Amino acid sequence: MAQKPSIPKGTRDFNPDQVAKRNYIFNIIQTQFERFGFQPIETPSFENSETLMGKYGEEGDRLIFKILNSGDFLKKVEEPLYTEKDAVKLTPKISEKALRYDLTVPFARYVVQHQNEIEFPFKRYQMQPVWRADRPQKGRFREFYQCDADVVGSTSLWQEVEFVQLYDAVFTALQLEGVTIKINNRKILSGIAEVIGASDKLIDFTVALDKLDKIGEEKVKEEMLSKGISEAGINKLQPLFELQGDFASQIKQLQDILSASESGKKGIEELQFINTAITEIGLQTASLQLDVTLARGLNYYTGAIFEVAAPKGVKMGSIGGGGRYDDLTGIFGLKNMSGVGISFGLDRIYLVLEELNLFPDAVNKNIKALFINFGDKEALYAMTAIKQLREQNINTELYPDTAKTGKQMKHADKRQIPYVVLVGEQEMANSVFTLKHMASGEQKQLDIQGLIAALS
Amino acid sequence: MAQKPSIPKGTRDFNPDQVAKRNYIFNIIQTQFERFGFQPIETPSFENSETLMGKYGEEGDRLIFKILNSGDFLKKVEEPLYTEKDAVKLTPKISEKALRYDLTVPFARYVVQHQNEIEFPFKRYQMQPVWRADRPQKGRFREFYQCDADVVGSTSLWQEVEFVQLYDAVFTALQLEGVTIKINNRKILSGIAEVIGASDKLIDFTVALDKLDKIGEEKVKEEMLSKGISEAGINKLQPLFELQGDFASQIKQLQDILSASESGKKGIEELQFINTAITEIGLQTASLQLDVTLARGLNYYTGAIFEVAAPKGVKMGSIGGGGRYDDLTGIFGLKNMSGVGISFGLDRIYLVLEELNLFPDAVNKNIKALFINFGDKEALYAMTAIKQLREQNINTELYPDTAKTGKQMKHADKRQIPYVVLVGEQEMANSVFTLKHMASGEQKQLDIQGLIAALS
Repeated sequence: MAQKPSIPKGTRDFNPDQVAKRNYIFNIIQTQFERFGFQPIETPSFENSETLMGKYGEEGDRLIFKILNSGDFLKKVEEPLYTEKDAVKLTPKISEKALRYDLTVPFARYVVQHQNEIEFPFKRYQMQPVWRADRPQKGRFREFYQCDADVVGSTSLWQEVEFVQLYDAVFTALQLEGVTIKINNRKILSGIAEVIGASDKLIDFTVALDKLDKIGEEKVKEEMLSKGISEAGINKLQPLFELQGDFASQIKQLQDILSASESGKKGIEELQFINTAITEIGLQTASLQLDVTLARGLNYYTGAIFEVAAPKGVKMGSIGGGGRYDDLTGIFGLKNMSGVGISFGLDRIYLVLEELNLFPDAVNKNIKALFINFGDKEALYAMTAIKQLREQNINTELYPDTAKTGKQMKHADKRQIPYVVLVGEQEMANSVFTLKHMASGEQKQLDIQGLIAALS
Repeated sequence: MAQKPSIPKGTRDFNPDQVAKRNYIFNIIQTQFERFGFQPIETPSFENSETLMGKYGEEGDRLIFKILNSGDFLKKVEEPLYTEKDAVKLTPKISEKALRYDLTVPFARYVVQHQNEIEFPFKRYQMQPVWRADRPQKGRFREFYQCDADVVGSTSLWQEVEFVQLYDAVFTALQLEGVTIKINNRKILSGIAEVIGASDKLIDFTVALDKLDKIGEEKVKEEMLSKGISEAGINKLQPLFELQGDFASQIKQLQDILSASESGKKGIEELQFINTAITEIGLQTASLQLDVTLARGLNYYTGAIFEVAAPKGVKMGSIGGGGRYDDLTGIFGLKNMSGVGISFGLDRIYLVLEELNLFPDAVNKNIKALFINFGDKEALYAMTAIKQLREQNINTELYPDTAKTGKQMKHADKRQIPYVVLVGEQEMANSVFTLKHMASGEQKQLDIQGLIAALS
């Protein structure tokens, strides 16, 4: 019995139209990465397990896809351990490699491994798939692409400024106008926690604050209370919930709230630097907004935190995010390497462009003309013309079989090929080609030069 | 203790220069694929194991990378089987997914799964990595890219003609002149086996014949003898070893040898069709050569067999190959779907281009100019200019830190950036920029328009 073919859950096939649209996004991101001086690297799809394990928390460790060792993978497993039949304990004995979970850890590994070849500061970009054994759901896949740009080896805030510009440049090039680039700073969050006497509960505090958009002020306060943050502390937060006005005036209000925190003041200073520069230089279509509730993987970030929201009216989670992490490469033994980077969410950007109808019509590089096949003699004559057209960069092809003309026409129609070329005995005798425009049905006879001109 | 970072054997990191060179090859192949009317698809990195297992022979099954099931993968393993501690028997119980081994089987699976959405004949291309647990050695990796173009759903020989042209077009575009496209036909091989009375030993016969280049006539004959092919039969092969002249005259000699075999005559007819068309249409820089010893994965191919050899003087195995397989999708239940396709060997093509120095200098899309950072005020002024340059499609960046000028210059030098731009107080006062050419040391002062013009 033949197998009924299917693919693993959480994975996808992409048809030609989808690949063309995805490549359209990739190409624009790549062009802007290079415009800003980022250089591409690629790392292997699988890494040694010890490179990945323990880097994403317990949950992350579970979600990493492990690769079974080749050959007799049970040979070296000792009997007592095998008899325990404990999957967690057995895993490291029968699996030494694992699929990439993100691009950041492999990048950190790359920097440390190749530190002597790299000229710092190193601006790299990377666009490759990652894999996560997450429960698949709408918009969440087990294989998906990440598009990351990072700089490592400098603490300059000009990089944060550049990343804001880079987001603006990419979304402008994608004609996705009106995105909001939200920014925050880990030091602001630490400062607030300090001021309300909850420095030891920074994570609980930020996790709760991060939910403000979704669950509202009251529930956020309840959650903080339940995590042991004092009522007096929470009351001090009130001005935070009432932050108003533009970036500069919000900063002013923050200065009052955070006047007692060194960390908070440093965070404000950093945000001010970035906002002043961006205001001076100007953005094309995006806007920069302060969001003190933004936390995103806080354990990770030490300075700026970024997140990009789709234009108003489009219901979609963040379409990009990033931030600064002061000790990117420490886990692999290279200290004092500050990193800052951003990521683009390809799948979500795709959905937004689809919803707003922003993909250009010409995104699918379809052929321009199909030559109808009337028989071997005519086909040979057609192929000689096709060769010349292709050498003039015109995408074209011959229908391979001598099928009925109607069937061949239908094929052109179904593939949305704009023109067909008919070459019968008469055309051959006169060294001409009949070019038919599929949509209008209009026909004209042209010599090879005319054909090249018409299809160019 | 920090881990000393490394990557699994047989895998590679690619630095910016290598990625740029690889993308140069990918882009040329992709452009020509689209020129010839092929459309891109992508399939998941891992497939259900049953999709892949049993499709590549026993050896292939062993070389497929299996992915460990997530969660408590031992829970459902029954005790008696577990106790056997047999890796081969345990594998299907603890692993349901496997990494793609090639692009052909996933393509066949795709065609069957999506047959109702596909307009046939379907010309698809696919450029994605594949994984094999082969013993790594020079030029053989555990992760590598395949670049495949196939047509499914037509038996027309015009497709074989097109694939010869496609090889010629790609290698011409890569400026790799003088490659040899070798062609054979499974029916010729069957015909010869028939004529020498070894039809039942077709595989042994072709495996031996395939080695003619490497081990010579005598050893080939010895191997055939050892496989049970009769001396009388082998003697009949003599004219085959002495085939001479161009394609047409070799065909003539073959006609004599194979006059008693229907299959052989059909093979000759097919080869003649292809050669006549190619001779008539013409190739740009490649040449087409008959090679009756060419077998390549014979179990697979049923008609044409292709292989591409690098230009004379370059020591390198084949840089491409392919052929026709009459029952591509039968394994997944869709009968009578003939497929024909070719593949490009990216890694080997890379090595050949490197050896012959054929990569263009501009392949690495490096930045054009680095702005020297003299302090925040100057940097802000520089960033305003940088924004304008980038909007004019000029790749440029600011050195992020206010380091010593000498250090910044050295950075530009190491990154092989052709220009630096210096903006100090004086330049700011006069609204100009000092542009310095790194190689010559030449300097000039320009306004923003002049700067744009100089760097465009």
